[in-house]
This record gives sequence, structure tokens and C-alpha cells, in this order.
Amino acid sequence: MKNFDINEDPHRRFNPLINEWVLVSPHRSKRPWQGQNEVLSTEDLPKYDATCYLCPGNVRANGVNNPDYKNSFVFENDFAAMKQDEIMFEEDIKHTFFKAEPERGISRVVCFSPRHDLTLPEMDVADIENIIKTWQKEYTDLGNIKYINHVQIFENKGSVMGCSNPHPHGQIWAQSSLPTQVEKTQNSLKSYYDKNQTTLLEDYLKAELKVGSRIVIENNHFVALVPFWAIWPYETMIISKRAVNKITNFTTEEVNAYAKILKQLTIKYDNLFSTSFPYSSGIHQSPTDGLEHPEWHFHMHFYPPLLRSATVKKFMVGYEMLGESQRDITPEKSAEILRNLSETHYKDEVR
Amino acid sequence: MKNFDINEDPHRRFNPLINEWVLVSPHRSKRPWQGQNEVLSTEDLPKYDATCYLCPGNVRANGVNNPDYKNSFVFENDFAAMKQDEIMFEEDIKHTFFKAEPERGISRVVCFSPRHDLTLPEMDVADIENIIKTWQKEYTDLGNIKYINHVQIFENKGSVMGCSNPHPHGQIWAQSSLPTQVEKTQNSLKSYYDKNQTTLLEDYLKAELKVGSRIVIENNHFVALVPFWAIWPYETMIISKRAVNKITNFTTEEVNAYAKILKQLTIKYDNLFSTSFPYSSGIHQSPTDGLEHPEWHFHMHFYPPLLRSATVKKFMVGYEMLGESQRDITPEKSAEILRNLSETHYKDEVR
Ligand SMILES: O=P(O)(O)O[C@H]1O[C@H](CO)[C@@H](O)[C@H](O)[C@H]1O
Ligand SMILES: O=P(O)(O)O[C@H]1O[C@H](CO)[C@@H](O)[C@H](O)[C@H]1O
Repeated sequence: MKNFDINEDPHRRFNPLINEWVLVSPHRSKRPWQGQNEVLSTEDLPKYDATCYLCPGNVRANGVNNPDYKNSFVFENDFAAMKQDEIMFEEDIKHTFFKAEPERGISRVVCFSPRHDLTLPEMDVADIENIIKTWQKEYTDLGNIKYINHVQIFENKGSVMGCSNPHPHGQIWAQSSLPTQVEKTQNSLKSYYDKNQTTLLEDYLKAELKVGSRIVIENNHFVALVPFWAIWPYETMIISKRAVNKITNFTTEEVNAYAKILKQLTIKYDNLFSTSFPYSSGIHQSPTDGLEHPEWHFHMHFYPPLLRSATVKKFMVGYEMLGESQRDITPEKSAEILRNLSETHYKDEVR
Repeated sequence: MKNFDINEDPHRRFNPLINEWVLVSPHRSKRPWQGQNEVLSTEDLPKYDATCYLCPGNVRANGVNNPDYKNSFVFENDFAAMKQDEIMFEEDIKHTFFKAEPERGISRVVCFSPRHDLTLPEMDVADIENIIKTWQKEYTDLGNIKYINHVQIFENKGSVMGCSNPHPHGQIWAQSSLPTQVEKTQNSLKSYYDKNQTTLLEDYLKAELKVGSRIVIENNHFVALVPFWAIWPYETMIISKRAVNKITNFTTEEVNAYAKILKQLTIKYDNLFSTSFPYSSGIHQSPTDGLEHPEWHFHMHFYPPLLRSATVKKFMVGYEMLGESQRDITPEKSAEILRNLSETHYKDEVR
């Protein structure tokens, strides 16, 4: 009987953040692909697009004109998934099988730049700092609203991730409840903190830095790594070295280091397949329910769908939906590939 | 303050099968769509394709010839996600953050028909019965292997669901562990059964039949419905009326009724957008660990991605990955639409 080799043998790995397993099949990455190819737009975008509802000065769906903004610009989503209205709700409609409750919330759109064509990896660090400051302001403003207990900052990048406008932008959905994934994470973080008096991610980060094999980028204040339990082929997580529980607690120096690692990571992503790399990303941090939450530790998830090339993605389908997430390439291999990629954007190499 | 109206107001619904919530935004279904359109193949497929590795008589990637099969045909997946080898594993590599364990398993492909062009909705009931019998045989054979504790039967249909060959086929992944989603479901089913001495789905089905608004199809032995907590726009579940815990326990009459409801449901799906409707489907039933499992109740999930048309799907991306699943159209509305669709396939209407 052969000895277990994590780099070669099929195995499961455990994700202590959400208490779920992932199936890893290292030997399967050589499988041929005859299925669907994604159509990625390769055309060069203009700096300004008169038909874009996010460009400065243009008119949005609701008839309002965007201001002539110079940095980032935030507005209320015209087709929000939640509404602010307070709704009268009688508990007795609850039922073992038909349990529902009204949900209040606010959705905002954050334009990252007035430039229609400028994505994170191509922006200056100072401009990225501005985005982080905008996130800080929104987290504070929305979090201060009495009924808002959670502020989800995220970005869908690329049409393959359901993004309907290439003008660089993210979203914020703020709401009264803790969303499912956040609640799961909080439960894990809390039980770890209660037991150890340190945050789970503080200790995890120490362990990862010791091993080294899953680290992609490290600076004075942040680390970008491929989690041991990553499900997407090139999934990463940016973790702050200091156990800071929310974005508003970062020092000026930390904001600068965060902007730098965001730029470096997204450059590596673009360089991987020489394409504007699609992903969904988002920040997990303390809820805004007025409690202390020392168990929370700021981190940002990147979930990119691409697997083999700019046009072949990983499908999380049948087995993954019914059974559990499955990956082919190991997290260690992905980290190595990302680590070895240049930190100069491929477009700048060519210029 | 207005009263809560589940048909109009944003709300969350609870899924007691996996203990998770879904965000429902009924008002949002009128949102315009400027994003990605799926490219669905509309070409008519030939009955036999000489380049297809699933057609009878053709050669597969590993050089083996398919037999000249007449009904369904099962073979071992040439690029399996798991291997059968027993692996030596020392518990001490376990770690708070780096918890991994080897996983053994078998992957099989089930060709539904020798015909390259014949999907479930277009097959005769007798042919679908044959597929069900094949599933029964595989469940028994694989389940009898000592180290196999779970047999996942599923289908990825359509290129948008990662299916790389249009020849109608499903898969079976059998393995030593309970996959994450199955384990979650089992926990819910077990605690319900221990408390009530009836299966959760028996009581849920009774409650749904009383309400009626989410029922799509009902026959003597099965019901197809849109679950109260469905996340995909046209998600459905087929539930057996009798609390049967595995596919091998169905009577001949039940197998016939199951084949009929499978045909009717997939015809309605095709009719919805006049297209060969993509989905991932799969059966949840008792593990094969040798225990009794009276808490299990046979059901089959259908997770179809399409939202507005044959080319516009729902994206489960940023908010959904970081927060929780979100839907626009209500399950009641989806059920009504599916219920009212014809049970004659659109291709037969035209003929
Ligand atoms: O096994 P196949 O059909 O090649 O692959 C398909 O189904 C598998 C099981 O759901 C997924 O892991 C793959 O991502 C998908 O492309
Ligand atoms: O709000 P958008 O950008 O129109 O929509 C996009 O992001 C949302 C939040 O992740 C998803 O619910 C939608 O399916 C997706 O298309």
C-alpha cells in the first residue's frame, strides 16, 4: 500500500472558516477539455463611453445624471435586491417548512474610477487607496444606520461573473441580517476566539507563513495566499497581519500596504492568462451590529472561475452542487504559479 | 407601515434541508439585462456521431471500443476525480488548519441511450424506466463495495453546465465519505426523524400538497415541486410520496411513475424557453454505509441556471458567494409558470 501523498493522491481538505470539505483530485488536471469555451471580450475599451451608465456626466436608467466625478463615485443601485422600507411582520406566519421573514437593506454601486477602461491592476496605488477610503466611508455610513447589521463589499469582474458593464465598479449590499456565509464564518471565528483568545486567522496566517508554499505575496502588513482549503483553481485570500476586525481600523500605512497588495495580486491575475482576469471578490469583516467582535479578522476573498486558459473555466455543477466542491490543481501548485508571475502588467511589458 | 407581502417584499426564506437562508427579491425581476448572453447550440444533432466517444461502437480516449449497446450503457470514467487505491494514511498529519485525508472512490458514466440526439424529455417512458433500473443496479453494485459509503447519481446537461458532450449521459461518483451537502442534509433529516418519527420530506410534502401553489406535477407516487426555499429560478425537486429511503426500494409501479414524472418535468423545462433546457440534477438518498437510515427520503434535485430566456442565466456570483444565495422571481411564480406549460414537447407541437 502506498503512502499518502497530498500532491498526487485524491483527498479531501477541511475549511475551518465555514466547516466544509473540498474534494481535491491532483491527478485530474491533465483531463482533456472538449466543452464550452467562454467568450471573453478582448477589444480595447475607450477611456470614456457615451453609452455607459457609469461614466461621468452620463444619464442612468432612472434619468439622473452622474456627476463629473474625479475619483471613485457611489450611488444607490437602481435595481436593488433589497428595499429600505420597514415592513410589518407577524411572527405567526413562521412555520417549520415555510419560514420566511422580511429583509431590509441598501444596495450601492461604487465606481472605481472615472475612466471606463481602468481596472484595479492598471490603476495607481494612490487611486486604489481612494477606493479603500470610499469603502471605509461606506462601511461607516451604512453601518451607522440603526437597522443595518452587515455591510457586504464586493466586486463582480468580467461578463463570465455576471458583470453587465465593463466600467470598473464594485457593489455594497448592506442589510439587517447576517448573510448565511458570514454567519457560518462568524460561528467558526467566535468559537476559535473563545477558546484561544487569538483570532483564527492570526494563527492560520502564522502557520501559513511558516510553511510558505501557499503564499503568493507578502508585505509588511498583508499577505495574499491560496487557502489550504481553496475551492476555485486560483482562489486567494488577502489577510491583514494585524488582527484588525474592520476596514476602518487600518492605519494610513496599512491602507497603503493594502492598496499595494491589491494592485500586485490583480496584476498577477491578469498576467496568468494574459487577459483581464474575471473574479468575484469581497471583504469579510465585523458585522455592524454595535457589538465588539474581537473574533473577526479582516480578510478579502477572491473567487476566480478560470481553470486552464482565458476561455476555459471550472464548472461548479452536478457533483459540486449535490455533493461538495471539487478541484483538480492543488492549492500549492496554484500558489507557486501565481507567485512566479511577474508583477509588471503584461500590457506594460508589451508597450 | 405596510404589511409583509411575500409576493412583493424582499425577504429571506429558510431551507430546513441544509439549514441555510436564501434572499428573495420579487420586485427585482424587471431589472434590464445588458450582460453576458449564453451561446446555446441550436443545431440539430445527428442520431449517431462518428466523433462522439459515447456513441455505440466508437473508441474512447483510453482506446477501448464501446459495445453496440441498445439501452443504457455504463463505463468507468477515464478521468475520474477519485481512485480506488487504498492509501496508507497517518492520522498525525492532521492539524487545526491543515486537515486533509485521502479519499477513495469510483466514477462512472451512464449513457442514457445509444441515440446521440435523444434527451430525457424525448425518450419513451419505457426507456427512462431502463435508466432508472440502471441507477438501481449501480447503486446496489457500488454500494455493496465495502469502502463505498455514498453513491452520488447526477447529470450535467448542456454546455453551460460544464457538460462536454451532448450525447445524453449522466455520472455516478461513489466514495468513502459523505460529501458536504449530503452530510448537511442527513443531519437535518436525522434530527427531524428522531423528534417526529416521520421523515422531514413526508411532512413537508403533505404541507406543500395542502398549499398547492408550488406544485408543478403530481401523480400517484411522485410530486415535482419548486421548493419553498429554491435558489435557482426554476429549481425543482421530485419527491416520492412514500417515505422510501433509496432507489432500490421502489416497486415496479413506482419506477413507472418516476419515469413518467421525469419525462413530464423535462418536457416542461424544454418548453419553458423552447430550448434543450440545461440543468444539473441529482438524487439524494440513503448512504450505503450499511446502516438503516429511516430518516432518508428519496428526492431528486434539479438546478437549472436559466433565468429570463434561453440565453440569459442567473449568476450566483459576488453577493451569492460571499453572502448568500439570492433570487428574483418567487418560487410560487416559477411553479405557476412551469405548471401551466404544456406536457407535449415543443418539437412535437411543430411536427
Ligand atoms: O466529469 P466531466 O463531465 O468531464 O466534468 C463536469 O462535471 C464534473 C462533476 O460535476 C465537474 O467537476 C466538472 O467541472 C464538469 O466540467
Ligand atoms: O447587481 P448586478 O451587477 O446587476 O448583478 C450581478 O451581481 C449580483 C450580486 O452578486 C447577482 O445577484 C446577479 O445575478 C449578477 O448578475
